[in-house]
Amino acid sequence: MPVATTQSLEELCINSIRFLAVDAVEKAKSGHPGLPMGAAPMGFILFDQFMRFNPKNPQWFNRDRFVLSAGHGSMLQYALLYLTGYDSVSIDDIKNFRQWKSRTPGHPENFETAGVEVTTGPLGQGIANAVGLAVAEAHLAATYNKPDCKLVDHYTYVILGDGCNMEGISGEAASIAGHWGLGKLIALYDDNHISIDGSTDVAFTEDVSKRFEAYGWHVLHVENGNTDIAAIAKAIETAKSVTDKPTMIKVTTTIGYGSPNKANTAGVHGAALGGDEVKLMRENLGWEFAPFEVPADALSHMRKAVERGASYEAEWQSTYAQYKAKYPAEAAAFERQISGQLPPNWDSVLPTYTAADKALPTRKHSETCLNKLAPVLPELIGGSADLTHSNLTEIKGYGDFQKGQYQNRNIHFGVREHAMGAICNGIALHGSGLIPYGATFLIFTDYMRAAIRLSALSEAGVIWVMTHDSIGQGEDGPTHQPIETLASLRAIPNLTVIRPADGTEASGAYYVAINQAKEHKPTLLAFSRQNLPNLDATSIEGVTKGAYVVADCDGTPELILIGTGSELNLCTTAAEKLTAAGKKVRVVSMPSFDLFEAQDAAYKESVLPKAVTKRLSVEAGSSFGWHKYVGTEGDTVSIDRFGASAPGGVVMEKFGFSVENVLAKAEALLG
Amino acid sequence: MPVATTQSLEELCINSIRFLAVDAVEKAKSGHPGLPMGAAPMGFILFDQFMRFNPKNPQWFNRDRFVLSAGHGSMLQYALLYLTGYDSVSIDDIKNFRQWKSRTPGHPENFETAGVEVTTGPLGQGIANAVGLAVAEAHLAATYNKPDCKLVDHYTYVILGDGCNMEGISGEAASIAGHWGLGKLIALYDDNHISIDGSTDVAFTEDVSKRFEAYGWHVLHVENGNTDIAAIAKAIETAKSVTDKPTMIKVTTTIGYGSPNKANTAGVHGAALGGDEVKLMRENLGWEFAPFEVPADALSHMRKAVERGASYEAEWQSTYAQYKAKYPAEAAAFERQISGQLPPNWDSVLPTYTAADKALPTRKHSETCLNKLAPVLPELIGGSADLTHSNLTEIKGYGDFQKGQYQNRNIHFGVREHAMGAICNGIALHGSGLIPYGATFLIFTDYMRAAIRLSALSEAGVIWVMTHDSIGQGEDGPTHQPIETLASLRAIPNLTVIRPADGTEASGAYYVAINQAKEHKPTLLAFSRQNLPNLDATSIEGVTKGAYVVADCDGTPELILIGTGSELNLCTTAAEKLTAAGKKVRVVSMPSFDLFEAQDAAYKESVLPKAVTKRLSVEAGSSFGWHKYVGTEGDTVSIDRFGASAPGGVVMEKFGFSVENVLAKAEALLG
Repeated sequence: MPVATTQSLEELCINSIRFLAVDAVEKAKSGHPGLPMGAAPMGFILFDQFMRFNPKNPQWFNRDRFVLSAGHGSMLQYALLYLTGYDSVSIDDIKNFRQWKSRTPGHPENFETAGVEVTTGPLGQGIANAVGLAVAEAHLAATYNKPDCKLVDHYTYVILGDGCNMEGISGEAASIAGHWGLGKLIALYDDNHISIDGSTDVAFTEDVSKRFEAYGWHVLHVENGNTDIAAIAKAIETAKSVTDKPTMIKVTTTIGYGSPNKANTAGVHGAALGGDEVKLMRENLGWEFAPFEVPADALSHMRKAVERGASYEAEWQSTYAQYKAKYPAEAAAFERQISGQLPPNWDSVLPTYTAADKALPTRKHSETCLNKLAPVLPELIGGSADLTHSNLTEIKGYGDFQKGQYQNRNIHFGVREHAMGAICNGIALHGSGLIPYGATFLIFTDYMRAAIRLSALSEAGVIWVMTHDSIGQGEDGPTHQPIETLASLRAIPNLTVIRPADGTEASGAYYVAINQAKEHKPTLLAFSRQNLPNLDATSIEGVTKGAYVVADCDGTPELILIGTGSELNLCTTAAEKLTAAGKKVRVVSMPSFDLFEAQDAAYKESVLPKAVTKRLSVEAGSSFGWHKYVGTEGDTVSIDRFGASAPGGVVMEKFGFSVENVLAKAEALLG
Repeated sequence: MPVATTQSLEELCINSIRFLAVDAVEKAKSGHPGLPMGAAPMGFILFDQFMRFNPKNPQWFNRDRFVLSAGHGSMLQYALLYLTGYDSVSIDDIKNFRQWKSRTPGHPENFETAGVEVTTGPLGQGIANAVGLAVAEAHLAATYNKPDCKLVDHYTYVILGDGCNMEGISGEAASIAGHWGLGKLIALYDDNHISIDGSTDVAFTEDVSKRFEAYGWHVLHVENGNTDIAAIAKAIETAKSVTDKPTMIKVTTTIGYGSPNKANTAGVHGAALGGDEVKLMRENLGWEFAPFEVPADALSHMRKAVERGASYEAEWQSTYAQYKAKYPAEAAAFERQISGQLPPNWDSVLPTYTAADKALPTRKHSETCLNKLAPVLPELIGGSADLTHSNLTEIKGYGDFQKGQYQNRNIHFGVREHAMGAICNGIALHGSGLIPYGATFLIFTDYMRAAIRLSALSEAGVIWVMTHDSIGQGEDGPTHQPIETLASLRAIPNLTVIRPADGTEASGAYYVAINQAKEHKPTLLAFSRQNLPNLDATSIEGVTKGAYVVADCDGTPELILIGTGSELNLCTTAAEKLTAAGKKVRVVSMPSFDLFEAQDAAYKESVLPKAVTKRLSVEAGSSFGWHKYVGTEGDTVSIDRFGASAPGGVVMEKFGFSVENVLAKAEALLG
């Protein structure tokens, strides 16, 4: 009974996706077949009928971006990448789903698999990343396009699920996307009314469509997303026709569609169907093909994407050639930016300071750096989560990024730290050389930690600008005063945390951050609210090494004081007094654990010689993590309790961040 | 021109609130006058006309709860507490706003100021706490009330602002509150269309009312919240009449109302008005009173709250006496629970295990503990953020907490980790002895970190149940595998993190967690996904000490292996091999840094003698923080990079969590 041959070509393609997902999960004995089975039609239609991409050049600049926000359904994406001819996913890769060193990990990872734009899995991140991708497109289009020549012109498509829509981050991102009117953002909501706990009736009965309307989105509904292919196509067509609002298409589907006993149950969400049920599903859908076998007709049809893709890219290359001929200056700027190269001598704008210069908060120095860098780095774009004038992140003269004003570079994220994080990640991962920055108070990294972690994991070159970096914050009190925050961020792999001590070190921090952004590495900068004196001995080069000597004695020190940020000057002042008292003291500025760890052993030994065991760290934050540097015989001036509400200077003094206390602890160590 | 005397009594009261806020901020030269100035009318009406509370017994059980979610407007709350006669806030306290050791810190802190229910400031937390307070009320009412006797019966009122409504957490909380139909939750949205960056036009143009309708809320609008007192009162009255839905009243106000030049600007949000403007404001509102002077009529009117409060409480005590007479068993249970005392021998239900017992994941042991504890601790209530059957947190036989089924104790939070956190905090801070627990994968503490921190800061006795606690998670890959997560949580002050190694230690973890909950201290438990053998030497008592010896040698050890959780058995197995090879090795199980730090120096020395410097920690997580225990001469078996997608056993082996690698590192240390 060769039923399969009676299926339409489209059905063959869609069922190929379904069975690749089912078979891969079955072989891995792990994974999430349910979403790919239900969302296969919308995935097929997107990749086959709408999306412009070139499988043989996944990085082609003007491609439509696709984000699987419901990242657990990764097999949907891998199946589509394989079927449309990406070299990154072969049938063997699919057979190797979720195995060691495979290119088909459990959730889509942009750094593992070409064709995957962003790393998803933690729910809600993908839709917010997609907003960032759409922001990047809108900004570049507004910046570079000419009335007669559209250099930048692509859509951003997302598939998100019930889980994504329950997460607050998706609400934040959808609200700001609606505000911005990002018309080329099209989200398909896989409304399968099942999450891990069962029917969404147990916890999610809101009217999602109405909510998106409230955000200012254009909202559509496809009632039968399982088989009504024409309706899905029509909805996407309609979505494209509305250019001043993002569109959310609610596509009602059945999770695990095709499985006779498990469809529409939580059982098919995150586990293999089991051999018997797979057999029944094959019978149910009349599927005569072996595991991992794709009908030749389906494969050859979907592989037409390769030819289409080549032609899309050729067409764009021709547009680009015209652009280059007509607008050589803009083309050169565009090319330089896209290449990821920094302009020559960009860093010459970064100021340095001497002790004679006015004491200022490092957040003020950060503002200076951003404003010096903005003219030489047009790729710098960002803003704050509603703390612009506290974080001091406005780049003056570059306008506000708003609906219809997409060329502008100051982004108002609103009080939406988490979405800000994921949007910045999306802007960075657009792959167009943009360097996004996102700002809030250091303590509120807690609101956006998942996005910061993803910037580190997914190699998004974002600059996180965090101000009010200690209890020196003052009157706002313990809810606003970071204690453990620096430690908790330093612990994140691949994230460089820098806490500069003065103006020169702030410049050093930006020097590192910009360079790292170009190497697809995020940097988190922690700046003070309060004034700090400038030191003569600080240097940009010192910052690049993470820790360096800023005051020293002759010969081997008896004691090393290690300071960061606002506490470095306590160390240098204390050292002066100790030196005057005949002690041999070294002061090390340690703006970054991470950068110091990257130095060779000889350098580390030169800064913190093993023989010197009397070491005192001074940092207005938790002692957690400091024992690696102060050792078992050292000590810390730190705070391991929550702060208190009072003027910053009072709080600092009361909690022991004073020259007197540093001296007392130093003298105790010296014995 | 004694204009003030021409003001109505209500105006006098409202302007008293406004000027207390203005004068306090002016004196402190720090704070947020804008919100109190605009929200004074709604605050006044709530406290004067609707709320039932007893200023002389702020902890009176059946009081209406009030949450200022827009916590920066703390002076609104302090003014109301002072005016209505709470002893916790005197006029001197108000003069001492935001000063060291004052009872009027920058943001409302429940642990500093009686009458403040929860700690707010980080935006959006308060509205989610309020959902938790309403959950607690609904649950206790359903549990204890009788048709003829309402023992538990109060409202939860919240004032939230634009900032709260931009935060994702508030959307999550509002969605689930709508789902639950919490009719006694009434939120007043101070719609002043100004946030720190200026007009909400720059980032927040969604239709908030429509969004709340989409969540299933009853929504009202007061168009003139500045002066239309009757409309505010009517709206609250209407809100109370709708009993099957929470109500959101959008109250349109002017931030900084009364200030001639700064009203309706961001300038009045978070800074003192300045002497000149305060003077102009006094003229503008015809206010002839000195700073901090409250007109006698206003004070005496508002102080009627004291008499009212006494009578409310007396009335309730009488109800309670009847209840006690009619339903002595229920009254005894209620009394025991409210008192915060645990029932005798509650901990006898916690099982212990021997090496002969079956290897199981510690998450399975957690399930056993929860299900053993549920019958003896009726105050235990909680659930998971849509991972019930992965976290194994269902307490069987206790039903699902749902609309109209509020007596049930299994809460489905949906995929809303952040709201779950804040809701659990609210349940704990209801002060009725409830012990809430909230569960997700350990990695997703990143989504709810701000709420976990607030549990620690605000002394909310919550149990955080976190499973899939390492790269042993396996196939889901690096997005789902904690690396730095344990370190980042251990760094939070006042949060006890416990990572048990087997069944007995899981019981120990719950033993600590339940006891700490009663001491208003949160505990975070980290459980394995994968099977772990049971060890004979583990003990509940050992867990209570944070670290203890589970295998030892004669005399002074040459080497100490320190293991936690799933890696402890690697240590014991390696130690056996080393011992067989003639080495003197000790194994320390260290389920909790925090509990160990709380021990005295002698105990610490007995477990980790200073003389033994060859120490090796083994934990499938970041090395960050471990150097305090392994010292400069020790080493770690740890992972300081992101994980990978593959079966858990493979991932563990590949990243060095094997007996072989422990032996290799141990032998390197032994030299």
